[in-house]
Amino acid sequence: MKTVVWETLSENQQEAILERPAVSDSQAISDAVSEVIRQVRTEADEAIKALTLKFDNVPLTSIAVKEEEIDQAVTRLGPEIKKALQQAYNNIACFHRAQKPSPVKVETMPGVYCELLTRPIERVGLYIPGGSAPLPSTVLMLAVPSQIAGCRKVVLCSPPPIADEILYVARLCGITEVYNVGGAQAVAAMAYGTETVSKVDKIFGPGNAYVTEAKQQVSNDHKGAAIDMPAGPSEVLVIADTHANPEFVAADLLSQAEHGPDSQVVLLTPCMAMAEKVSAAVAEQLNHLSRADIARQALGSSVIIIAEDLEECVEISNRYGPEHLIVQTDFPSELLPLLDNAGSIFLGAWSPESVGDYASGTNHVLPTYGYTRTYSSLGLADFSKRMTVQKLTPKGLESLAPTVEAMANAEGLDAHRNAVTIRVKALEAERKRKEEG
Amino acid sequence: MKTVVWETLSENQQEAILERPAVSDSQAISDAVSEVIRQVRTEADEAIKALTLKFDNVPLTSIAVKEEEIDQAVTRLGPEIKKALQQAYNNIACFHRAQKPSPVKVETMPGVYCELLTRPIERVGLYIPGGSAPLPSTVLMLAVPSQIAGCRKVVLCSPPPIADEILYVARLCGITEVYNVGGAQAVAAMAYGTETVSKVDKIFGPGNAYVTEAKQQVSNDHKGAAIDMPAGPSEVLVIADTHANPEFVAADLLSQAEHGPDSQVVLLTPCMAMAEKVSAAVAEQLNHLSRADIARQALGSSVIIIAEDLEECVEISNRYGPEHLIVQTDFPSELLPLLDNAGSIFLGAWSPESVGDYASGTNHVLPTYGYTRTYSSLGLADFSKRMTVQKLTPKGLESLAPTVEAMANAEGLDAHRNAVTIRVKALEAERKRKEEG
Ligand SMILES: [Zn+2]
Ligand SMILES: [Zn+2]
Repeated sequence: MKTVVWETLSENQQEAILERPAVSDSQAISDAVSEVIRQVRTEADEAIKALTLKFDNVPLTSIAVKEEEIDQAVTRLGPEIKKALQQAYNNIACFHRAQKPSPVKVETMPGVYCELLTRPIERVGLYIPGGSAPLPSTVLMLAVPSQIAGCRKVVLCSPPPIADEILYVARLCGITEVYNVGGAQAVAAMAYGTETVSKVDKIFGPGNAYVTEAKQQVSNDHKGAAIDMPAGPSEVLVIADTHANPEFVAADLLSQAEHGPDSQVVLLTPCMAMAEKVSAAVAEQLNHLSRADIARQALGSSVIIIAEDLEECVEISNRYGPEHLIVQTDFPSELLPLLDNAGSIFLGAWSPESVGDYASGTNHVLPTYGYTRTYSSLGLADFSKRMTVQKLTPKGLESLAPTVEAMANAEGLDAHRNAVTIRVKALEAERKRKEEG
Repeated sequence: MKTVVWETLSENQQEAILERPAVSDSQAISDAVSEVIRQVRTEADEAIKALTLKFDNVPLTSIAVKEEEIDQAVTRLGPEIKKALQQAYNNIACFHRAQKPSPVKVETMPGVYCELLTRPIERVGLYIPGGSAPLPSTVLMLAVPSQIAGCRKVVLCSPPPIADEILYVARLCGITEVYNVGGAQAVAAMAYGTETVSKVDKIFGPGNAYVTEAKQQVSNDHKGAAIDMPAGPSEVLVIADTHANPEFVAADLLSQAEHGPDSQVVLLTPCMAMAEKVSAAVAEQLNHLSRADIARQALGSSVIIIAEDLEECVEISNRYGPEHLIVQTDFPSELLPLLDNAGSIFLGAWSPESVGDYASGTNHVLPTYGYTRTYSSLGLADFSKRMTVQKLTPKGLESLAPTVEAMANAEGLDAHRNAVTIRVKALEAERKRKEEG
């Protein structure tokens, strides 16, 4: 790993060190995805079957996964992984249940009642990528909050053959609509609907460049679907002081590095000796990893930054805004109030990133690529929407009327003023009638 | 207004009635906006001055509005409108303060602590359109939540000359950075920064087709800025039963219609007589409006739908998902649990839309154009982001270890498993050392 001393760098060099690698907009990918979307919109199920044969090399007899197939997967799966997935489910459910918003209702003025209501998004689509190893943890991260939010329709798409682990978690989370479809065609099917796949309102989940591009395209189309958040390469930043255990720090850096060759890995420390010990530990541990080749590529573009002190580490971290932020210092909780712009924070020696990836209870779908400045860690709120309500009493309207009338006048909107004035006059007329009667 | 009886329509006709008018993607607008953004990114302040001369016909001596100019605006403004804006400020602040989230912290398993932290977005940009009449209400709707959320930098852009009402509200909300710049050039300046205008992380506010397109373009650029929500024409849907006051209903329909020729206006009622009375009242009230021409155009594409009963009214409303939903029925609160997919709901005879537009306390920036299915009414949450935190005790890690190890195995991620195993081994070694010592 390359090591730099922060204070020896120029302003421009500092900026360059924290710069994310450009993710090239490929016109070829964009065009291919547009064509897939067009095909799914016009030929629907037929297109899904043709594209699945073409891209996944699987001739589908049924797009939907049948209940019995899920039963069989549940039976086949070993007890150890089942127990683990059940425990992860419990923890994730516990933390996401705690996110239920408290009711918001206030009387802003006498007789003027305002309320904020939270409602589930009705129909959501979960995308689970395929690949060499199944990703049941991603199913948990998407399905558990959808279940707790109360979404009425939850659709899961994944390229065939779908692993038993994924089907087991789908069952655990009460998902009954599971489809054998991956890639851009899955995103298109969920955004627009086909004979078999239900149209949804919002699509969640990670994927390759085609899936990401398809999510972008359908979210820019008014008739398509909303999406969870913008995508980017995964990343970790570790802040370590002299008290950190270099073996632990190395293990955390490597667990990020093994995700993919484009993973970003940053170590921030005020201690040169720590930097050296971590580097040595990384080199040693790398020898024992099955995905060492991938990790080595990621480490090629990673960096160790030597800062002046912990305060400067915090400043640099806030400026970078990492997806995962691990704090291995003597009193990590003391730094928490200073930390900003992170997806998920791991405090202390006993909180490796892998607990958050899987089972501590937090969500592993996080903003990355600098989006931590404005986007949130995935949570219950992303499966819900908020609407406001107001109810005025006759008295409330009368007290607010002069305010609304003056503002409508200032903005030149007669009809807005009139909607208030006509009511105030009606109240006055009624009062007069009562007095006279 | 055109009147249709819902049950006499075919499925396709029903869908067509609820269809929003297509907003055409204009390549000319898109190209013009790209060029403005390019110019602002390369020539910065110089571009702002050139574009403001070109589009607003104003030769700027200073891009920034000076403190003294705001002082003068405050002095010039009359007491009545000042009092109104202050009252609106108080109500909006009251409702948005009530939206502060309660702390979320749970122990998901013994020794495993998870927390959700809410932090303000650091730098936000507020866009206030120009036009024939000033829009101080929009400044309130954007600035009050930014202030309550605790955003550190709040930038306001509006085309010159900026009205006194806008400057007064900016002062009321503590905004010190006000710039004389409108249109796509304002969005570009806030997204990328210039010598004078600060770069922001997220841009809020309404605008014409150029502003909307510019927001779209900068939000699709990783180096640009996030935006509040997708735009669309404004709309109202009124549900009225036989007990409604047709004069009130007509006034509400007209206050939506006067917003612009593309405003959508829908009346849903189970009562044919009510439909007729409202139509007549609309025709009568129209005669007294200064913006009658605009309202008449909007009414041209609006519709009255006669439904079977209130239940069907609710169903149709949920399917349409209006920005503003006014419920003028005998027991409006009883319908509330059934209502979904709306931006803001106005309950009962004394809650016209104009109170929400200005001063009840709710936000008037709302999802429209069908986006109510997935997007929320603007609120405190939009000026904040949420990050998660986890902290495990040694015991907590040991209890969670088998779960994480089994899941990392299932997903083929050695380094993830190792980050846990290495720590568990360290704890075991320490325990052994203690026993032996
Ligand atoms: Zn990971
Ligand atoms: Zn209005």
